[in-house]
Amino acid sequence: MNTYSSPVSVAIAGATGYAGQELLTLLNRHPEVHIAAAMSSSPDSATRPMPRLARTWDGKIEPLNRAKLTESTFVFLAVPEAAAADLAPELLEAGVKVIDLSGAFRIRDAANRAKWYPATTLLPEGVAYGLVEHNRTAIEQASLVACPGCYPTAALLALTPLMQAGLLDLSRDVVVDAKSGISGAGRTASDRTHFSENHGSMAAYGVLGHRHVAEMEQSLGCEVTFVPHLVPLDRGILETIYVRVTPGTTAEAIGEALGRTYQHAPFVRLTGDALPEIKHVAWTNFCDIGWKFDAAARRLVMVVCIDNLVKGAAGQAVQNFNVICGFDERTGLR
Amino acid sequence: MNTYSSPVSVAIAGATGYAGQELLTLLNRHPEVHIAAAMSSSPDSATRPMPRLARTWDGKIEPLNRAKLTESTFVFLAVPEAAAADLAPELLEAGVKVIDLSGAFRIRDAANRAKWYPATTLLPEGVAYGLVEHNRTAIEQASLVACPGCYPTAALLALTPLMQAGLLDLSRDVVVDAKSGISGAGRTASDRTHFSENHGSMAAYGVLGHRHVAEMEQSLGCEVTFVPHLVPLDRGILETIYVRVTPGTTAEAIGEALGRTYQHAPFVRLTGDALPEIKHVAWTNFCDIGWKFDAAARRLVMVVCIDNLVKGAAGQAVQNFNVICGFDERTGLR
Amino acid sequence: MNTYSSPVSVAIAGATGYAGQELLTLLNRHPEVHIAAAMSSSPDSATRPMPRLARTWDGKIEPLNRAKLTESTFVFLAVPEAAAADLAPELLEAGVKVIDLSGAFRIRDAANRAKWYPATTLLPEGVAYGLVEHNRTAIEQASLVACPGCYPTAALLALTPLMQAGLLDLSRDVVVDAKSGISGAGRTASDRTHFSENHGSMAAYGVLGHRHVAEMEQSLGCEVTFVPHLVPLDRGILETIYVRVTPGTTAEAIGEALGRTYQHAPFVRLTGDALPEIKHVAWTNFCDIGWKFDAAARRLVMVVCIDNLVKGAAGQAVQNFNVICGFDERTGLR
Amino acid sequence: MNTYSSPVSVAIAGATGYAGQELLTLLNRHPEVHIAAAMSSSPDSATRPMPRLARTWDGKIEPLNRAKLTESTFVFLAVPEAAAADLAPELLEAGVKVIDLSGAFRIRDAANRAKWYPATTLLPEGVAYGLVEHNRTAIEQASLVACPGCYPTAALLALTPLMQAGLLDLSRDVVVDAKSGISGAGRTASDRTHFSENHGSMAAYGVLGHRHVAEMEQSLGCEVTFVPHLVPLDRGILETIYVRVTPGTTAEAIGEALGRTYQHAPFVRLTGDALPEIKHVAWTNFCDIGWKFDAAARRLVMVVCIDNLVKGAAGQAVQNFNVICGFDERTGLR
Repeated sequence: MNTYSSPVSVAIAGATGYAGQELLTLLNRHPEVHIAAAMSSSPDSATRPMPRLARTWDGKIEPLNRAKLTESTFVFLAVPEAAAADLAPELLEAGVKVIDLSGAFRIRDAANRAKWYPATTLLPEGVAYGLVEHNRTAIEQASLVACPGCYPTAALLALTPLMQAGLLDLSRDVVVDAKSGISGAGRTASDRTHFSENHGSMAAYGVLGHRHVAEMEQSLGCEVTFVPHLVPLDRGILETIYVRVTPGTTAEAIGEALGRTYQHAPFVRLTGDALPEIKHVAWTNFCDIGWKFDAAARRLVMVVCIDNLVKGAAGQAVQNFNVICGFDERTGLR
Repeated sequence: MNTYSSPVSVAIAGATGYAGQELLTLLNRHPEVHIAAAMSSSPDSATRPMPRLARTWDGKIEPLNRAKLTESTFVFLAVPEAAAADLAPELLEAGVKVIDLSGAFRIRDAANRAKWYPATTLLPEGVAYGLVEHNRTAIEQASLVACPGCYPTAALLALTPLMQAGLLDLSRDVVVDAKSGISGAGRTASDRTHFSENHGSMAAYGVLGHRHVAEMEQSLGCEVTFVPHLVPLDRGILETIYVRVTPGTTAEAIGEALGRTYQHAPFVRLTGDALPEIKHVAWTNFCDIGWKFDAAARRLVMVVCIDNLVKGAAGQAVQNFNVICGFDERTGLR
Repeated sequence: MNTYSSPVSVAIAGATGYAGQELLTLLNRHPEVHIAAAMSSSPDSATRPMPRLARTWDGKIEPLNRAKLTESTFVFLAVPEAAAADLAPELLEAGVKVIDLSGAFRIRDAANRAKWYPATTLLPEGVAYGLVEHNRTAIEQASLVACPGCYPTAALLALTPLMQAGLLDLSRDVVVDAKSGISGAGRTASDRTHFSENHGSMAAYGVLGHRHVAEMEQSLGCEVTFVPHLVPLDRGILETIYVRVTPGTTAEAIGEALGRTYQHAPFVRLTGDALPEIKHVAWTNFCDIGWKFDAAARRLVMVVCIDNLVKGAAGQAVQNFNVICGFDERTGLR
Repeated sequence: MNTYSSPVSVAIAGATGYAGQELLTLLNRHPEVHIAAAMSSSPDSATRPMPRLARTWDGKIEPLNRAKLTESTFVFLAVPEAAAADLAPELLEAGVKVIDLSGAFRIRDAANRAKWYPATTLLPEGVAYGLVEHNRTAIEQASLVACPGCYPTAALLALTPLMQAGLLDLSRDVVVDAKSGISGAGRTASDRTHFSENHGSMAAYGVLGHRHVAEMEQSLGCEVTFVPHLVPLDRGILETIYVRVTPGTTAEAIGEALGRTYQHAPFVRLTGDALPEIKHVAWTNFCDIGWKFDAAARRLVMVVCIDNLVKGAAGQAVQNFNVICGFDERTGLR
């Protein structure tokens, strides 16, 4: 049941960052979408040619224009948190539906939000956390979808079914060791994103202090030890997750908890003990989940892969858009 | 005090694999060494040119020759476990000192060894585990040094001081999440080592079943959850280690345990909370160790980097050789 | 005007090599195609899982089956030259249309073909060289399309318009310096395709002896100096082409020759002096062509980029298929 | 014959760029050198830790200090052209020997220099072009050595012997197609050096307008068509050089011209038709030169590899220093 007449008019704020470029690419080939505007707040970006899109998109990047944004039915925000926190209330006021890729509206608890996303002073009405596989009903009704961060997307898709089935032994550690391609560090040139600093190297960062941990803990309701790393590839995340399960948990119970949860989820592929690799999901909206279980020690190691720019950002944003519009979830994402 | 007259005559068995090439390179520039022979058991390798060594090494790779090996004072074994298990007894019999880079003689417990290294039916007299920083006295007296595996080298250098100081809370998990360059998978061409399968990708392997875990558990005396991964770079290992410390442990105590242990270790660099990166240690024999401590939760995350072919293999072998010979530990390794 | 009723039944021989996998991916999402069979001649490949295609293709790789191949309307051959030379006559005999990705049928001159493709003793009737942009009419009538090699595709798209316009000074050299990602070396594991031999390195190969030069010279009618290189990336080719133009040739004449030729070609993008990069064309069927002209010296340097697995192989094969079937050339390739 | 008492006091201006870091590393392990100062003109660089050098260099990066520079016997300038042009005269005035890695003093012809290096208004007395293999006598006497650019180093080592032997057919094109690792683009963060813009991609740049062509043409005395490219690796250059030789030139004549020239050159390795790869020379001061000759067409293709940061910059600078000081050319470079 489509609740919007096709094509749906959408605008993108922040179309020249890596997530924004991906969004523009996906929306441009989405059969039910009309791109009314693709904007950039960075002065030089607005005139930057986008050679990869030549012949497939005939539009032009324009400077950020708040008035024009309010004329669209949907606005995708692919801007930093502070800009999103600033733009969203005005758009909601104007009746525009907002799909926000920033972290501004992900954290419900005010104190926690103030710690990690200080620019966001207020959580508007009608906000839904955009993990479609676990929050579909709220998303369908939402005025603003706060798309999950790339790292939480992978971690929560793996852990939520086990948590909900009561299979996690919470007296032991939940460790999420995440490895991300460099596009996850954004398009801004810096020592951190210089080719020569990453080629043939890798590094941990944000150890015990990365704000994505707040999202994981909010959704799971338990403490998570989370360390992200940058690995020398462009796009993709692999997370290795270490947990202990409750006494009596069998391999079958683990498989069933995951299988039941995702039996109708078109973008989650359970690979069992054939562990996923980034190559299998790059450039797709899939999340692949595999695991190895040591029953004697009740140790469970899960390996999860997504493309950080697709399922971890732009693809998931489009998936949310599809859900709100009543389109098939996979529209424009195959 | 040098106990061998210089130059010391050494032979290499297995000089064309990646560890063997590195060993040949290091020994070739070692001021106290004469390379009596560099052998390969692989038929085609013996005639393979080694263009990188042209002008610096004027020798030739020869076929494996057991008789000739026994004529050297030292033999470095850079061959697979089964070949090492086969060659070593004969060499020891002939009074040759053996530096073994394989896993054949690393595990003391017979049952455990039978599980992971089934070709090694007997542990000869005079075997020492070659982690110089923690086993120097035994190495000085040894007839055969079993050089540690690349993954245990990094993990044990990080964890042993804390274990010895009683700082680890063993009721919680000890997790070692290791990331290795592809040279760690060896020179044999396979799907696993194909460029296109690794570029832009990464994968876990040997999850809960990699034999290096046996070395870690043997030395630490506790259960270790160990998962190695292949990352798209050539040489280097980064390990992220997750532990909880005992109640009352302070940041100072952690720093002191490490600092005291390594104050005279020329190849261990403690970087504190400036976490190490593979780029800092590649092509060197250094092991860099950094850490972040969350006192409230007693969580400690350690990050350790080595070059898997140097400190994790050939460099450590030379370091052991230096110790046995009474040379400065750093000879040929700067 | 479609001359085949939709969906068209196609079979793939050689679906597990890199070009074959790409072909399977493209045909699987082609709206007018039914994949009747995807076969592999390699015994282990037939049972190899293809995790990237899970959920999008529900078929199974089967062993090569000649009889079953003849039941399809179209067969795509993504097998080595000798296998293609062996299979094609039988398929043509049975009235099957053949799209061949190998080099078996690219060279018209028998002596030249015997030199480079010795397994191909006979050129069947109805063969067309599948460079759609320059040979459309012949392709429309063909029983077998010999898809161009990856390197000639890029070189010929750049040079043919200038040659046809008489702008090339043939008393000077035509140099094609080509750089290819490693997937161009095929899926077979070897020293040449080992990750560690390519990461941080690059090499020329087939210097003055690569068979693709025959295709370039056949189509251009002049001598070409061609050197391919392997560069440490997975997919993509960049060719730098050095020519001198005839006296009196202006920058406008060059631009017009190219612009006129490709004004209706959906997959050729002329970028003028904004030179193309592999990143702009990877995973697409585009060929991007840019150039710099030094009028005083009559020197022209062209830079051409394609994805070797798409426009250089599977994508171009589908493009040819579309032309024969009378579909929009872009069907399944957007 | 050493003309300087050991250790020689040297200072480095520009020690934190990639060439400067390499220089600091090499000079730090040079047995005849005392590093009096390592300076950086960039404000933040001066306090940047250099973790790779920890334990091997106990100095500290200091701010640029002109007075202090003049107190050293030698100063290595690893700063941009304009800074070198500014600093050098003062240093020479003070009697300091200067090894300049910038382009400031490479071009002798004033008009040509004004075009490519406009900041250098004057060529001081006593300047020598630092291509040791071809200009040793002048270097021995020089007050300032202008170290060759990375690209000309490779091209001139390959072509100069053939030019001097009169084997090049100058009525045909001399094409130098160069591929460089990203460290060649410098340490400054920019779109051009961003990891994600280079990984899985490559690009030509400076086509027909790169200033290194001036050096090639100055030394060879003929027109050179030169195009550099950035390839996704960190360090190393591979150049493919296309020439035609004069009628009657034999394969032997080519081999002899090269062999005679480099018979005593410790850093040039002639590999004949076993073509060099970047992997063979990375992290070394070697220049490997291979070639393929098509006698019938008089076509010669040469492939040359160097490490751009060593033989193409810091290593060659040290080699020049050794020559001036009368040390063995290889000191500190093995």
